[in-house]
Order: sequence, then C-alpha cells, then structure tokens
Amino acid sequence: MNIQTPIANAIPTGERPGSRKVYQPGVLWPDIRVPFREVAVHPSANEPPVTIYDPSGPYTDPTAKIDIEQGLSRTREPWVVSRGDVEIVENPREVKPEDNGHAKGEHLAPQFTAPRRVYRAKGGAAVTQLEYARRGIVTPEMEYVAIRENLRRQANDGAIRDGEDFGASIPDFVTPEFVRDEIARGRAIIPANINHTELEPMAIGRNFLVKINANIGNSAVLSTVADEVDKMVWAIRWGADTVMDLSTGRNIHNIRDWVIRNSPVPIGTVPIYQALEKVNGIAEDLNWEVFRDTLIEQAEQGVDYFTIHAGVRLPYIPLTAKRVTGIVSRGGSIMAKWCLAHHRENFLYEHFEEICEIMRAYDVSFSLGDGLRPGSIADANDAAQFAELETLGELTKVAWKHGVQVMIEGPGHVPMHKIKHNVEKQLEVCGEAPFYTLGPLVTDVAPGYDHIVSAIGAAMIGWFGTAMLCYVTPKEHLGLPDREDVKQGVIAYKIAAHAADLAKGHPTARAWDDALSRARFEFRWEDQFNLGFDPETAREYHDESLPKEAFKTAHFCSMCGPKFCSMKISQEIRDTAAKQNDVATGMAEMAGKFRDGGGEIYVKTE
Amino acid sequence: MNIQTPIANAIPTGERPGSRKVYQPGVLWPDIRVPFREVAVHPSANEPPVTIYDPSGPYTDPTAKIDIEQGLSRTREPWVVSRGDVEIVENPREVKPEDNGHAKGEHLAPQFTAPRRVYRAKGGAAVTQLEYARRGIVTPEMEYVAIRENLRRQANDGAIRDGEDFGASIPDFVTPEFVRDEIARGRAIIPANINHTELEPMAIGRNFLVKINANIGNSAVLSTVADEVDKMVWAIRWGADTVMDLSTGRNIHNIRDWVIRNSPVPIGTVPIYQALEKVNGIAEDLNWEVFRDTLIEQAEQGVDYFTIHAGVRLPYIPLTAKRVTGIVSRGGSIMAKWCLAHHRENFLYEHFEEICEIMRAYDVSFSLGDGLRPGSIADANDAAQFAELETLGELTKVAWKHGVQVMIEGPGHVPMHKIKHNVEKQLEVCGEAPFYTLGPLVTDVAPGYDHIVSAIGAAMIGWFGTAMLCYVTPKEHLGLPDREDVKQGVIAYKIAAHAADLAKGHPTARAWDDALSRARFEFRWEDQFNLGFDPETAREYHDESLPKEAFKTAHFCSMCGPKFCSMKISQEIRDTAAKQNDVATGMAEMAGKFRDGGGEIYVKTE
Repeated sequence: MNIQTPIANAIPTGERPGSRKVYQPGVLWPDIRVPFREVAVHPSANEPPVTIYDPSGPYTDPTAKIDIEQGLSRTREPWVVSRGDVEIVENPREVKPEDNGHAKGEHLAPQFTAPRRVYRAKGGAAVTQLEYARRGIVTPEMEYVAIRENLRRQANDGAIRDGEDFGASIPDFVTPEFVRDEIARGRAIIPANINHTELEPMAIGRNFLVKINANIGNSAVLSTVADEVDKMVWAIRWGADTVMDLSTGRNIHNIRDWVIRNSPVPIGTVPIYQALEKVNGIAEDLNWEVFRDTLIEQAEQGVDYFTIHAGVRLPYIPLTAKRVTGIVSRGGSIMAKWCLAHHRENFLYEHFEEICEIMRAYDVSFSLGDGLRPGSIADANDAAQFAELETLGELTKVAWKHGVQVMIEGPGHVPMHKIKHNVEKQLEVCGEAPFYTLGPLVTDVAPGYDHIVSAIGAAMIGWFGTAMLCYVTPKEHLGLPDREDVKQGVIAYKIAAHAADLAKGHPTARAWDDALSRARFEFRWEDQFNLGFDPETAREYHDESLPKEAFKTAHFCSMCGPKFCSMKISQEIRDTAAKQNDVATGMAEMAGKFRDGGGEIYVKTE
Repeated sequence: MNIQTPIANAIPTGERPGSRKVYQPGVLWPDIRVPFREVAVHPSANEPPVTIYDPSGPYTDPTAKIDIEQGLSRTREPWVVSRGDVEIVENPREVKPEDNGHAKGEHLAPQFTAPRRVYRAKGGAAVTQLEYARRGIVTPEMEYVAIRENLRRQANDGAIRDGEDFGASIPDFVTPEFVRDEIARGRAIIPANINHTELEPMAIGRNFLVKINANIGNSAVLSTVADEVDKMVWAIRWGADTVMDLSTGRNIHNIRDWVIRNSPVPIGTVPIYQALEKVNGIAEDLNWEVFRDTLIEQAEQGVDYFTIHAGVRLPYIPLTAKRVTGIVSRGGSIMAKWCLAHHRENFLYEHFEEICEIMRAYDVSFSLGDGLRPGSIADANDAAQFAELETLGELTKVAWKHGVQVMIEGPGHVPMHKIKHNVEKQLEVCGEAPFYTLGPLVTDVAPGYDHIVSAIGAAMIGWFGTAMLCYVTPKEHLGLPDREDVKQGVIAYKIAAHAADLAKGHPTARAWDDALSRARFEFRWEDQFNLGFDPETAREYHDESLPKEAFKTAHFCSMCGPKFCSMKISQEIRDTAAKQNDVATGMAEMAGKFRDGGGEIYVKTE
C-alpha cells in the first residue's frame, strides 16, 4: 500500500514559467472561482498581461495544497447537492475482484481510501446540464464556462473577428445565458458527472474554443498507478482539456479512482474495455448485465463521459470486410465480434434507452463511439463509416429525448480533401451535436510522427467545426506513450486547436498571437518564451545558440547575427517612416500614383 | 588545410533501413540512370516492392565511391557540352578575399581544389531548360524528370486518382514530352545550372510531386565547413529535394564550393547576403556592381537558383510601417534599407533585365523573393505583401521573355482561412509559375514547435497548388538548426508534401499509403518501419514497449496487448465473412433491406 509516496513525488506542480495563476469570481454564483494563466510582459511593452485558458487545475497554483491521497477539493459538491434533485446512494456498488481483473496481493493497486459520498438522481430523473438548460436554469457550471471562455475580456472590447467559421455562431462575448442556450440546443456539452465534484467545468461545442483530449491508460503489458496519475496531471499541465482513461489491464477500477479523485478535468472512459476484462477478454461472453454493472460502477466513481459503440450495428459489419484496415477501433471490433458470434444486433444499440436512463441519473455524457472509423487513407469516408454515422445521428435524438448530453466521435485516417465532408455530414446527421475527432491523420506513411500527421488534419477539422480534438502521440501505431510523448501530443494539439480558433475568427484568439509577435519584433525574448506553449523548450533552443544572459536582451538573434538582422532593419524603417513625412505619407501617395500610372516606372518626386 | 578528414568522416552514407538503391535508364537518352529507393516487403505479403522518390544521391548507394575532396561524379557535363551552345570560360572569375569575408589563415576555410571546367553560354544565349523546351527539345534533364516522377509505374496501371486538385493538370503518367511542355509553359522549372554537373535533375511544378527545400548555412555566430556539407547530405538523406545555402558569415565562397561539388540536388542561394558581406554589412553601400559580381561568382560556381528580392519596391515600403512585425525577410529588409537610405528604386528591380541576361547564360533559375512576406498572423495577406506579389508577376514575364526559368516565393505566417487566397492570387498574377512557400505558419504562439505549426500550413498550401515547400525547423525564431533539427524539419515537410500529393490525387501517392496500411493490418512490423519516413525511429518506439525480437512478428502490439487487439478481431471478422455466405453476401443484402425498411429495427433472417 506504499504506492502513495512515489505518486505524490512524481506529480508536477508549481506555476508555469512567467505565468501567474489568477481567478475570476462569478456574478450569478459569486462563490465560483474560474482559473486563468496570466502572462505578464516586460514593462517596456506597456501592454496588459495576456490571459490564457488554463485547464491545469490546482497543480499550477502555488497556494494550493496538493494531497494525492485526499484528492482535490470537492468544490462542486455543494452545487450538486443544492439543486435538491440528488440523493446519497446508501449502498454504493462495492468493488468486486473482477473490477480489478482479479489482481491480488502485491499485484493489486492500492484503493483510494479517502471517504466520499456517492450521489445519484432521485427517482431516476435527469440531473443533467442539458435538462437544467432546457428548463431555463443557468447552473454554476454554465456561468463558470461563460467566464472561462471569455479569458477575462470585457464585452464589446473590439476584438478582431477576422475568420471564416463555416456557419458557426460564435458570439462576440459569452454570457451565461448563451452557454445555457447552446447546452439546451445540444450544440455544446458540459461533461460533469455529479460524482466528479473535483471538476472545473468546461464546455465542448463548436461555438466555444476548440478543446483537446489526451488519452492515458495502462494495458496488459505496461504501466502502473503512479504513471497514470502523473500522466493525467502532466497532460493538463501542458493544456489537455479532458483526459480519457483507456486502461485495459488489471487494476482498472483502482487506477481510475486515483485519476478521477485528482482530476480537475472531465474524465472519459470506454466502459466496454472494462466489461471485456470482467469476462476474461472473451468478446462473445459480453452481455448486457455485465455492461450495465460496469456503467453503474463507473458512473458512481464519477466518470464524466462514456464512449459507447452503439452504432456498430450488425448489418454494417460486412461493409468492413473489404477494407484495407478493417475495424481499427478497439471498442468497435469487440462489438463487431460479439455481433458476428451471436449473429445478433449489437446489445448496446438494443439497450440504448436503458443506457440513457443510467447516464442521466449521474449526468454522464455520451461520446458516441465511431467503432467503424477508417484506420487508413484507403478506408476514409466509406460506406461503413457513414452508415454508422447515420445511426449515431439516430441515437443522438434518443439520448436528447432522455435529457442526456451527447457528443459524436469521428475519424481517424482521412486525406485532406475528404475532411470537410466529415464535418458537414456530422453536423447535418447529428443535429449539430459536438463533434469529437481523433486527428484525423492525413497520411499513413509516417509512423513515429503521427502527432504531426494528425495535427494537420486536426487543425483543419477544428476549423471546419469540430469541437474537440483527441490527441495522437508520436507513439501512435507503435507503442504506449510515455511522459514525453504525452507532452508532444498535447502541444501538437494545442497548436491545432489554436490554429482552428484563429481561422474561425474566435474573438479571443488573435490577441495572443499579436502579443507574441510584438514581443518577437521587439526582441523581448523572455516574453516570447513565456507566451509560447512551451517556454522551457523555447528558452533552451535559444540558449543553445546564444547562451549568455546578455543575449536574452540582445536586439538580434542567432539566425542572422548582430549586423544582419531583419527585425532591426525593420525597426529602422519604422523609425525613418515616423521621421520622414515623405515616407510616411508622401510615399504612400506616390505608391498610389505609381500604381495608377501603370506601375512600369517609378517616377521620383524630388 | 586538414579539414577534409573530419568532413569525410561526418558524411552519412549507406542505404536506408530495408531499402535498396535502384536505377532506371532512359529511353530517349539511354545513358541516364534515374535513382529510386526500393522497399521490398515481406514475402508473405505477395506484393511488389514499393518505389519511393529518392533525392539522397550517391550517398545511399553502397556501390558508390564517395570522395568529398573530389566531389560527386559530373554526370551532366557531357549533356551540357553536347548541346554545343556553351563555351569554357577561359578566365573564370578568381576568388577574391572579400568573397570569404576577408577570412585569413586558420580562419579561412580550405578551398575545394579538385579541378573543373567553368561553362557559360556562347554569345550570351539562353542555355536554359525553358529555352530548349520552347524549341521543342526534350533534354536528358527532362526525360530524367519524367522517369523520376513516375516512380517506376507503368502507363495505364490503373492508379487511384481520388483527390481534389483545384484545377491542376496532373497527368496519369508523365512523359518526357509532358515535362517539356510544362517547362515551356513556365508551369514548372528544372533548376540546373550548367556548372552544377553533379546534379540529379528534378522538377518543381504544380503538376509534379510536391517538393521540399531545406535551408543550411553558417552565420556570423556559428557553424563550419564540415557542418554545412554534413547538413546538406543529412537533409537529402531524409528527403530534401533542394537545399538553400543561406550562409552569411565568413568563408561563404569556400563553403559553397564544397556544398555544390558534393550536392546531387539543386542548390539555391540569396546572393544579396554575400553582396552585403562584401560591403562590410552596410546595406547603404550595396550597388549594382558588387551584386553583379556576386551573381557571376555564384553562377560560375554552379548555384541552381537565386532568390532575388526585386519586388521590394520603394513605394511599397511605407506599407510595412504599421505592420506588427515589419519586414521579416532578411533580403527584403536589406533592400528596403537601401531604398530608403538612397530614396531610390530598388536596384534589383531597375537592373532586372541585366540580371536575366546573366542568369540565362548559366541556366540559373529565379526564385523571386517575397521580401515583404508577413512575419505574423496580423500581417498576413496585407497590402505590402500583395503589392510585391503583383510586381513579382510583372518580373516573371520579363524573365520569361529572356528565357529564364522562374519560381515565386510565398509566405510566411498565414492563418488557415487566408492560405488559399495566396495560391489563387499567385497563380493568377504570376501566370502559373511555380509557387515556393515558407510554411506558412498558421499561428505565432508556438516557438520551439514551428516545424509542426508550419507543416499544417504547408500541407494545405501544397494541396492548393504550391510546388515546393521550404521547411521550417523547431529552432525557427530561436536559433540555428543543428543536425537533429534539420531532420525534424525535413520529416515534417515530407509529411506535408505527401499529404498534399494524396489530397491532389497524384497517381503515385496512394499506393505508398496503402502498402504501409496493409503492412500495419497484417502486423508486418518490419515492413511498417521500413515504409515510413524514419524506420529507425519507428523501430525504436516499438522496441521501447516490446523489445524482444519475437514481438516484431507478433500479431499484436503494446497498445492493446495480445488478448485485446482490434486488428486481430478485424482479421477474424474478415475470415468469418469469407466463410459465411450469409455474412459476406446475405448480410450485405440484409443491410440493404434494413436500410430500405426505415432502419429502425433489425429483423433476423433465420
């Protein structure tokens, strides 16, 4: 049971370089404290600090007391309880040996032991953000999200709205009422299980900032409790907005407990993975009862969203037989095997309404799994993929009927020219429910670099309207990601998400780029490092060439050297332009005359 | 003078893992030998080997004798001489002290001493591929390119043409006549200085495979001869199609000699950099004579293309004064400073026809520099950028008039929604001359990761019609790239270029992806490694999780472990489908009936 100390030691804490953790309170709900990362720039710039979206939780708050054995503070518990529609589960489901793959003795990961109450809806009601939104209630979660998305901007601050949003409805300023309305329409979700009260609420929707997900998880082959908790904290430190625990080996239950209790971001899972473990890995032995039991187990733990592969229907399976890479989704292939073995319809599809009834009692959101997503360029946008998507559209409406929040998973491997169609079809078929895609990878030929391959597709699909991008690490197709891979994957996806926000014309996006570019132009090296996604690496790269401290204030860089600097020359041009009337105004006029005159020869005015 | 040994030792030679160097002869010109990299797959696949475009030169040919002091074999010399339109320059320009920045003694890099002849056109004629093409001559260079672009495909082999090419004219099969026609129209170039006879010819054009350029070069601060030659060989080993030598410090001349004499790919330079060194770094002291002298110096050395910033016209400079990042092109800022200091039109613009006369006598191609490209998202697609582009269009026509080959440089920093307009405008304004862009970077906020940021923009702009993508390394904006950075930059850009080829529907593109995906599906691990851009890294990543040799033939991977493998399950589905008629055909019918029946409930047939 002495695994706690190594876990605690491994957890990365403290502020990011050049950053300060700040909070903004609510107005409707004055007790909420929405966190941001504030990066102050050098006083010489005479500019306000830049506020950056911050999913890293209390780990980057130097005043927070981090105690992994206690878990994070349960800030949301009063919000949940005060709504008056939940009850304490007097006899929560007990942990069974099969929940941890029958691990015993030294092979059994320690339980998370700090006591907590387990909640569920009274009388099977829907206690979901969707249900509240429909009733016109602005929850604390909704106001939290509104404040968070504005990044401390004021309404009507004249932000630049230069972009192409393909029919999205991104507001100039996010009000709590706007959040409520988006949730009520099903165009956004706030994944927030009533049993995950450690959560800092966030929204996933096309009219909000593009989010990213990082996957963690042990497998039969690798990993331990300490690694997974550390990876979760590490992933959010670099900017992951949600984390999926894809564990498949032993100790799934106990590891998940540690992860959720210490996670400020929504945790997603694929319950069929654990259900399969409970039937000793034999897909044919899966059944509704073991799956239902697993849903309740995980809902009581506080999982915020479930990937459910209910769209892998029996009649679609033959559509995959001639694919180059068949079915590459683990969940999809498990369900396909079950369907074929029994020659019966997918039991997740048949029991979908019962699944909804369970999920709405805890506010677990659906992530409707794309079990038939393409695993290669050859299989992109094929009949199997789109048949499943039609079914996901049908199931979206069923979930909404039950008041359950829904997002839709998407591919996969898709060449650039086929990406846009995925978004258009998803929006149409699924009634604008948020799209959540894995990449997509735009070629198959770069094993070892699939974070880059997929960041290309992710940036594009995010621009077109995808709400959340599931990261891919350099180890994709080759092995399980380690800490460095997680970081590389998260940063590649932060880039993709921000590039998408910029191209959509999101009103908070441009200010950040402009602040960094001004720092670059003015050789404020420290500001340039600190405003980037990875200040430590930027500084290290700079110092490799120019190690001395003086070079951090030098008005040149190693690319050109002191004599030969384009930024320096540019500054001289600007200074000259400011001094010379004929340059600043006369020359501009002259340029006009020149162009009017046919542009062949420049005639001097003196 | 003992620098040769360390150089020779550093040069990376030998075949790439799992690859074999093969050659295909010409038909019109039987002596030409076009190199390819052939990757054989495991016999169990029962598939032909995959042929990959190979710019790595003799360094990856185990039978080639590499002697850095002699340089590569001058294969093209008979081709050049036999055309009968060139003469030996009896008194080639002698190396002057200022050519090497007055470096002396131990600071002077050794000269490349192996003797060679220097050629130029007889009587100032155009000895360019463009001129030959217009005359209807299919040169060996053109047939070489045709063979190279087909990657050993046969005509009418039924390659998949699934893509969106935005009006490009990519043929099913590249004939020498097609190459000639593209060159004659100015839609493609073959950069091939008559004094770079070590060259393996390649084409840059929208209707050919997308190419990538890697930059090398010392600066006043860093680097040596050995580093630069090694970086060139290293860059082409990973797939760079051309290399620009952007040296700015001392020893520019001597380093360039070593690089060109050992380079099988076109070498580009920015002559104004060296001209500036010759006037001690004082932009105001630049003049036509020193520039002209530099052009001849470099043309006689064998530089294949010159970046010439003739579009930075005096009237455009005020348009940059209010930019966030001013002028970020080094060449652009030098010329802007000169223009402002003298309040005169850019002397490169005024002497443009004389520049053409020099370049056509050696077949140096223009890379018309975008000195006013945007250096930040804020400045993208602005008046300064597009004013210069209009002038580049005007200059393109002048160059064509003189029979000089031309490509056009493009940005820079551009958000995704503004990328396409760049290509459309360039194609229109510059009469479809090949576009050659730096990235573009789709956000400014990721210093340390700009290879990824810019690979996103590069893939998109390549898809839209850009012919060559200039790489960006992780050190962009921070420092000078080292060997590892060069590799990372090249691979990111190989990904972008191939993704663009795929999306354009280039007939050679899909076969590669499909071969790798089949290997992936069939757990042919070695094939998956070898078919990727970086077999060594893919293998290393795999082995971190599953080190034993047995796992390289294992039908599972570390992501799911042996019991839980989606590929394995997929294979079972395929096997089942093959066995069961009702699955393979009956179920497909059933699926049709099901959908026809409204898709609500699946009715079993038994």
